[in-house]
Amino acid sequence: MTETTGGRRGGGRAARRAARAEASAVSVPYITRTLKPFEVLDDEQLSLIESNADTLLEQVGIDFRGYPEALTLFAGAGAEVDGERVRFPRGLARHIVQATAPTQFTQVARNPAHNVEIGGTSTVFAPAYGSPFVRDLDGGRRYGTIEDFRNFVKLTYMTPFLHHSGGTVCEPVDLPVNKRHYDMVYAHMRYSDKPFMGSVTHPLRAEDTVSMARILFGADFLEEHTVILSLANANSPMVWDATMLGAAKAYAEANQAVLITPFILAGAMSPATVVGAATQTLAESLAGMAFCQLVRPGAPVVLGSFASSMSMQSGAPTFGTPEPALILYVMAALARRLGVPFRSGGGLTASKIADAQAAYESANTMQPTMLGGVNFVLHTAGWLEGGLTMGYEKFILDVDQAAGWHAFAPGVDMSPNGQAIDALLSNDPGTHFLGHPHTLANFERAFWRSTNADNSSFEQWDLEGARDANVRANETWKRMLAEYEPPPIDETVDEELREFIERKKASFPDANG
Amino acid sequence: MTETTGGRRGGGRAARRAARAEASAVSVPYITRTLKPFEVLDDEQLSLIESNADTLLEQVGIDFRGYPEALTLFAGAGAEVDGERVRFPRGLARHIVQATAPTQFTQVARNPAHNVEIGGTSTVFAPAYGSPFVRDLDGGRRYGTIEDFRNFVKLTYMTPFLHHSGGTVCEPVDLPVNKRHYDMVYAHMRYSDKPFMGSVTHPLRAEDTVSMARILFGADFLEEHTVILSLANANSPMVWDATMLGAAKAYAEANQAVLITPFILAGAMSPATVVGAATQTLAESLAGMAFCQLVRPGAPVVLGSFASSMSMQSGAPTFGTPEPALILYVMAALARRLGVPFRSGGGLTASKIADAQAAYESANTMQPTMLGGVNFVLHTAGWLEGGLTMGYEKFILDVDQAAGWHAFAPGVDMSPNGQAIDALLSNDPGTHFLGHPHTLANFERAFWRSTNADNSSFEQWDLEGARDANVRANETWKRMLAEYEPPPIDETVDEELREFIERKKASFPDANG
Repeated sequence: MTETTGGRRGGGRAARRAARAEASAVSVPYITRTLKPFEVLDDEQLSLIESNADTLLEQVGIDFRGYPEALTLFAGAGAEVDGERVRFPRGLARHIVQATAPTQFTQVARNPAHNVEIGGTSTVFAPAYGSPFVRDLDGGRRYGTIEDFRNFVKLTYMTPFLHHSGGTVCEPVDLPVNKRHYDMVYAHMRYSDKPFMGSVTHPLRAEDTVSMARILFGADFLEEHTVILSLANANSPMVWDATMLGAAKAYAEANQAVLITPFILAGAMSPATVVGAATQTLAESLAGMAFCQLVRPGAPVVLGSFASSMSMQSGAPTFGTPEPALILYVMAALARRLGVPFRSGGGLTASKIADAQAAYESANTMQPTMLGGVNFVLHTAGWLEGGLTMGYEKFILDVDQAAGWHAFAPGVDMSPNGQAIDALLSNDPGTHFLGHPHTLANFERAFWRSTNADNSSFEQWDLEGARDANVRANETWKRMLAEYEPPPIDETVDEELREFIERKKASFPDANG
Repeated sequence: MTETTGGRRGGGRAARRAARAEASAVSVPYITRTLKPFEVLDDEQLSLIESNADTLLEQVGIDFRGYPEALTLFAGAGAEVDGERVRFPRGLARHIVQATAPTQFTQVARNPAHNVEIGGTSTVFAPAYGSPFVRDLDGGRRYGTIEDFRNFVKLTYMTPFLHHSGGTVCEPVDLPVNKRHYDMVYAHMRYSDKPFMGSVTHPLRAEDTVSMARILFGADFLEEHTVILSLANANSPMVWDATMLGAAKAYAEANQAVLITPFILAGAMSPATVVGAATQTLAESLAGMAFCQLVRPGAPVVLGSFASSMSMQSGAPTFGTPEPALILYVMAALARRLGVPFRSGGGLTASKIADAQAAYESANTMQPTMLGGVNFVLHTAGWLEGGLTMGYEKFILDVDQAAGWHAFAPGVDMSPNGQAIDALLSNDPGTHFLGHPHTLANFERAFWRSTNADNSSFEQWDLEGARDANVRANETWKRMLAEYEPPPIDETVDEELREFIERKKASFPDANG
């Protein structure tokens, strides 16, 4: 991170700041929230939504397409199966989930200091996921490559304010579709030591991810520990397809965690109302989580919600708007009632660049993310253009915001030092507090300080080149990449990983599908 | 507001949208919040802060400098007066305020459709206040003029999402300091019909404001109605000075409203902790509100809090950071317990321009503003550079955000239409909702839509010139000013106002102090 307002005063202070940031990285592998979540509905209203979701699962049901095994599992569990349609007697899906799904679990990282708790009062930040494009100030917008992928893994590794390496931090479009997962998973394993996500684009790729994790962690270790998180999106409305079910099964049966996330553009994939979208999200995720529990009871699952509003004129998704925020608050409350971890939120925006639109929309999504109590935050940093682009500068700006949330989460310090009554009583009216012993004692930690924001005077800012937030962020990511050093890895393990990848890649032809 | 993504499709749609916005302006003169405020402390903790504030008022007391009348009033009310120091027996200041200050009041506008309720569940948005500079994309940063002042009054009048004309929307530096208040107050009265704020830079200027309001509304009317709001800042720590007391007295004795606002740069004007700053803010505002109640029992007062964190390195104020957000939540809760309206928040930022920094910081201040339950929001739109600059583009961007809050405030629609259970039950899995009768019925009002955000595809955005949020905002304010038409005014009244101003201006020489 750059030293902005004080940048001219020399590297010593910047180095000390960096050292402190590093220290906090070690001590805070994830955020622990202390404030009660903001609630937008009462228990009776939430109960009504649950009842409506039950009605939807009972009367309409949900299609499990091209995956007969799911139908067999659900029939065996008491659901009514009609072709590929599965209808659930009231309460059945909830019962299956609540019977065995953990309310909270640990995702183990290869560096145990980076293990994360997913669920309860913890919040885990991960970078954005899935964009085919990348953007930076120098080169503009272009297709992502494996070099970009590695860059974002490295940047995520370096910041203490992202706790998780994420998954498809961008699509490495320069590699064949059917083999790029090897390089992606390897990048997370080798260039970071934070927890990561596995491939879901084909069941075999999920199995490859599990195989690689067994090499990294030891085969036995996975039976007892969750080391992979994966993202399974429903094909809304009310469809789960074979690709996602196959990937989810591969992970669940290896005791690895699955984010079950209906991806809803409200008005297109669901009714155009907050409660309509929430009801359907609950129904779809209950069905998906129930599937995982039937595959392997106790496998970790996370209730996911990704909901955007829609421009009813163009059909384009819109972000940072009031309705998705309300959906998030509702879904967070529903997940708490269900007793499973919750995934949502992030620094979402429809803007093509990291301008004021991007920042307003991202902040207006991160606020409900934190105040609503999201446990796993995909897309915390880098997201642009509705997820089509991963931005280098946007990434840095969002990481800075993530840092701020670390300072908000502990809430209000009511200790005697926080109350500062002795300071108040020992200070005369009209006398400033700058030199007061209490101020001096709190100097270092009194206030969170952004590493991107420029708080200097207009004159100083102008003199320094009138750099905007993007220009400053551009300097930051370049400096970080220049300073990157990989975490140590057992060379035998690394060699085994590389041999596995080489053998696998050689065993079938490249294909882009 | 511009029609962004659909701009190419012709003016008819834009005109219809504008008409709808106008309609909503008539029906929503202010926001009525429906959600319970976000709380960061419990009753016991808030009670402890109140007790600490009482201790501060009892043991240290507060200076009322150069204003003997205040000392006389407080001595008569039972406070202990020692020189200019006033010490309050525990609970006295609170008792004076609670005995007579209204919990909520109406500020009457010359157009009754724009009357605002200040207090309770209402939230009133006003533009930024007090900047000597203005900025736009074309001319950069320069001193404000009376033309800029009028421009911001006109823009505020035109948007339905600011409810109040504000006060010193920028300093008209081209006019003499001792006479510019005439032109400022006249601009609010003539170029808008929304409620406004009066001059506080000298007691005589406050009296001039009251005189002009008596011309506009009728002298008798003011005895029974509040038509002026004014801003009195404490000289923190623990000092009220003669200028502010004189202005506050002029308004209070005319039954006009005063925002009693300690302006706290925490670490300089208060201890460098959230609770320390909140405790002092409560003590200072209690003393200021008590003064107004002693001047005229029942005069409307508003508990204000303006708190920023500080760069402990450079001493510069910092905005949109976690600590001021926490102070805001604490102060909002304290105001509710006291039973007076609360002023705080706004679109605050330290950024010199409307870049990503500005937007993150502004959104991170407006979120607690709304979720904390602020009643009167000064600085909703336009604020840049810690308040030193009023930005034309920033104003438009912030107004767009203010529009979004109008859609958030009603909360979740739990009506049968909102639940959309019939839509959910009548839709087959895998079939999108775009053509569903429920979607068509909700098409127009389903989602809030920004008038600045560009949600179009990268290709379309690029084709249209790759305009960022600032460029779009620049087009908007210029179009708005070009389309401005003044509200009607009684010509006799207008003439009387102008004669009053002319007579007054001629009665003493220009001076810049």
